[in-house]
Amino acid sequence: MKKLPSFDAFRIGPKHTLSDIAPDQKTFDLGGKKEERAHLEVLALELNDLQNLLYAEGQRKVLLVLQGMDTSGKDGTIRWVFSRTSPLGVHVAAFKAPSAKEKAHDFLWRCHAVTPGAGELTVWNRSHYEDVLVPVVEGWITKAEARSRFEHINNFEKLLSDTGTTIIKCMLHISKDEQRRRLQDRLDDPSKNWKFAKEDLTARAKWDVYQEAYDALLNATSTRYAPWYVIPADNKRQRNLLIAQLLNTTLRTMDLQFPPADPLLDQITIP
Amino acid sequence: MKKLPSFDAFRIGPKHTLSDIAPDQKTFDLGGKKEERAHLEVLALELNDLQNLLYAEGQRKVLLVLQGMDTSGKDGTIRWVFSRTSPLGVHVAAFKAPSAKEKAHDFLWRCHAVTPGAGELTVWNRSHYEDVLVPVVEGWITKAEARSRFEHINNFEKLLSDTGTTIIKCMLHISKDEQRRRLQDRLDDPSKNWKFAKEDLTARAKWDVYQEAYDALLNATSTRYAPWYVIPADNKRQRNLLIAQLLNTTLRTMDLQFPPADPLLDQITIP
Repeated sequence: MKKLPSFDAFRIGPKHTLSDIAPDQKTFDLGGKKEERAHLEVLALELNDLQNLLYAEGQRKVLLVLQGMDTSGKDGTIRWVFSRTSPLGVHVAAFKAPSAKEKAHDFLWRCHAVTPGAGELTVWNRSHYEDVLVPVVEGWITKAEARSRFEHINNFEKLLSDTGTTIIKCMLHISKDEQRRRLQDRLDDPSKNWKFAKEDLTARAKWDVYQEAYDALLNATSTRYAPWYVIPADNKRQRNLLIAQLLNTTLRTMDLQFPPADPLLDQITIP
Repeated sequence: MKKLPSFDAFRIGPKHTLSDIAPDQKTFDLGGKKEERAHLEVLALELNDLQNLLYAEGQRKVLLVLQGMDTSGKDGTIRWVFSRTSPLGVHVAAFKAPSAKEKAHDFLWRCHAVTPGAGELTVWNRSHYEDVLVPVVEGWITKAEARSRFEHINNFEKLLSDTGTTIIKCMLHISKDEQRRRLQDRLDDPSKNWKFAKEDLTARAKWDVYQEAYDALLNATSTRYAPWYVIPADNKRQRNLLIAQLLNTTLRTMDLQFPPADPLLDQITIP
């Protein structure tokens, strides 16, 4: 296996832009499809062990945020990276266009409600970052309002971090060509027709403006306590491997432990 | 494989009691441990396919309620039966002793908040049935109040059923001896110490009263639209197999389909 480049290569610093990272970049050189699948299975099983420890420890929390253009593979990432974990401690929250009730609150309200609790790992399938994408691209909010939202987002994530949440944010980075192939596939494959939404074409027509909006948010909200990683995502297996590796490495670094036993347990007899 | 007895054998009718079903009953005769594990893997993978269809269809909902005495295997059931499904469409809600805020509402409030949405399969790890167990055993509510709660529960489940939710309720039925072995195991195995709670001994001391409270609730709330199944649970693999088979059969019976394609899809070209 080719030595894995440092995750720092994918971590967004102040002056990075999406154009610095090629969407079709291959990070893992494992041989072929078969070897890639086998390695992902190893990582998925390891993630299950790590997540069990997180759950048993019952103290800390992990939040994985997934963002990306339509068809970038948010669902697929969840399906594969979490193919071996248990729903006991892994939760997914999907954010769609806000409901009337959600709109009646500030934009972080619905997100705060589904943050991970102690011992939990939560995945956000889209997130509060949608509120600095569509409204920016469509011109519903000014640049000053967008900057204000970035600040609220950073403060919110600092709160989560300070209270025991490890935050990892991944932007699934695909090329416009790859999106065309995937949308076409949804049209061609009857078992994928249900995934096709005409609205996706509206966002596709504004591809460059979305990329700019992503650049702005990535730069403004990649912090020490909640870093952004841009994941080359044209190749699905490479994408899964990189996110699984990033997540597992992060969890291993947390040095999770079974809670210490109560020394009085020795004196208990079950009647 | 021995022909599987009808699930009706485990379904609670008006005059059943827990004593009618032996906790150590073997339902599946597959050979040994290896064959049982292999068959469970087949069922877990099939459940993933069925759940994907439920998610794609995006119309109906499935709720699996798990109840049982401490150590009866609610967590283990979730871990094994859902070992191959994706957190994309499978959610687990665990109910603990109600918080002050939860107590400020009616006892169904916190449950209603986490019912499955369209296309989702939700598992309740404990449930609203806790509110007709501890309070009954401890004498916090009268028999008339318990009967009133049964009625509210039936009405609530009828609402869910009428609005597209298939409800399956499983009581994991273990013997008092088996509970002793499992509690002892939590004391003896350092990796299980964290699961031991002294409060479990308090409920164990009232074993018979709890069994009576279960008999009462099973009889009062096993309805056509939300049936109770009593699952022999002294043997973990047999328990998992029976619940997986029950769930898969139920989902197969729903005749889930990919949504029909929009006929206009043919006319779309991706720019």
